[in-house]
Amino acid sequence: MNHQIFCRVYYEDTDSGKVVYYANYLKFFERGRTELLRNFGISQSILANEQQIAFVVRNCQINYHSPAVLDDLLLIETKIINLGKASVNMYQQITCNNKKISTLTISLACINTTNFKPCKLPLTIQKIFYV
Amino acid sequence: MNHQIFCRVYYEDTDSGKVVYYANYLKFFERGRTELLRNFGISQSILANEQQIAFVVRNCQINYHSPAVLDDLLLIETKIINLGKASVNMYQQITCNNKKISTLTISLACINTTNFKPCKLPLTIQKIFYV
Amino acid sequence: MNHQIFCRVYYEDTDSGKVVYYANYLKFFERGRTELLRNFGISQSILANEQQIAFVVRNCQINYHSPAVLDDLLLIETKIINLGKASVNMYQQITCNNKKISTLTISLACINTTNFKPCKLPLTIQKIFYV
Amino acid sequence: MNHQIFCRVYYEDTDSGKVVYYANYLKFFERGRTELLRNFGISQSILANEQQIAFVVRNCQINYHSPAVLDDLLLIETKIINLGKASVNMYQQITCNNKKISTLTISLACINTTNFKPCKLPLTIQKIFYV
Repeated sequence: MNHQIFCRVYYEDTDSGKVVYYANYLKFFERGRTELLRNFGISQSILANEQQIAFVVRNCQINYHSPAVLDDLLLIETKIINLGKASVNMYQQITCNNKKISTLTISLACINTTNFKPCKLPLTIQKIFYV
Repeated sequence: MNHQIFCRVYYEDTDSGKVVYYANYLKFFERGRTELLRNFGISQSILANEQQIAFVVRNCQINYHSPAVLDDLLLIETKIINLGKASVNMYQQITCNNKKISTLTISLACINTTNFKPCKLPLTIQKIFYV
Repeated sequence: MNHQIFCRVYYEDTDSGKVVYYANYLKFFERGRTELLRNFGISQSILANEQQIAFVVRNCQINYHSPAVLDDLLLIETKIINLGKASVNMYQQITCNNKKISTLTISLACINTTNFKPCKLPLTIQKIFYV
Repeated sequence: MNHQIFCRVYYEDTDSGKVVYYANYLKFFERGRTELLRNFGISQSILANEQQIAFVVRNCQINYHSPAVLDDLLLIETKIINLGKASVNMYQQITCNNKKISTLTISLACINTTNFKPCKLPLTIQKIFYV
């Protein structure tokens, strides 16, 4: 896997089943994608405010292997698996002490925020990821 | 109390203490304020998009009396206690089967969304609430 | 589709892209599944507290067709597509004024909450859904 | 202020007003309190699971000074201002580049999780904070 961050599980992430609420894993995954971009100097707020560009999720497939619980320290790993002209596919995985918690495949599209229509990936991203 | 809505507690609202997470009561309270306005024909998305007006919270005081749990049907009651030229104070209360769950006093300011500066309450609101 | 509920989009559901945050559609979908069960007299809190039974998500596939925005009134439709001995598969869809917003296929397992191991669907559910 | 952590603002924290949603500051504040305790070797999940002890919020007062936005790096500072036999009062503040974002005064009670009744602070905490 290419990129790694750690996230702690707080009360806000859990539900009364005493595990992380199923939608909240998507928050951890999104933090992983955001930090991967930030690592390359790409800020999504600058993209949105200065270039009117944003990434939107087209679809995703989540597998829940084992539940995470309060105070767990999660490792979120992110890998770019395909770069199109106006889209990115990623594979992500959450583990805790080497135990697989959840995996995600996700397809994102690059859009113009003024009309929500697809647009080419910003040059800064093309330069980094196309080789 | 002036205005009433009911909200159900779902897993999303709870935490691993098996009660509603303390921040999530603010979501129920905000739904109550939104529906009070909608009741008078006021849509916050139209206010924001067409008049560049939004309400922001200046401060609030929350008391937690008794915890709500999964599947509870909550009654959210909302009362306007003071209307200034550019501000509104409200009192809200959440109960479940007449048991007091939480109370809130909140002070909201009316702002222009283009510069975040205070502005007068929109005419539609003045007409309804000033008598 | 078998079962329908309406949900309003509040500020809590949106993000600074001015659309519903991608994880929050899973909250709307879960409300739909919960109300389908409640419709048949099944309360998840009673299942958990009295029979130590809960449903956990094994995997899901989400498609995002069009974004929902603040104040939208969403229709959440839920259909059971397969019932195993210890699992349920459902198909769900969110629309707004007949415009497709998001679709979900989800696979849930029935577990014993004391040991997190798979268990048979509760009799109340078998009686309703097996014919 | 005694204890400090940094938190990044992600899309999950924001709303369509393009600022952090007002309830979500309570999540940042709770992370601050949790990390203060963890710093002293106190894990809330161990307290809950092994000693049946939890902290619940009795009341809080939040002031919103200036909005935080996407990608902001927030400093959360936490100070214990009073320790009772079964309660703790704290003062917390969120800043971003020395700009005051939000402040909180909060009163927490120590409860027994089996009956939700007040109980004495755990010995580990008394030893650390009572001098």
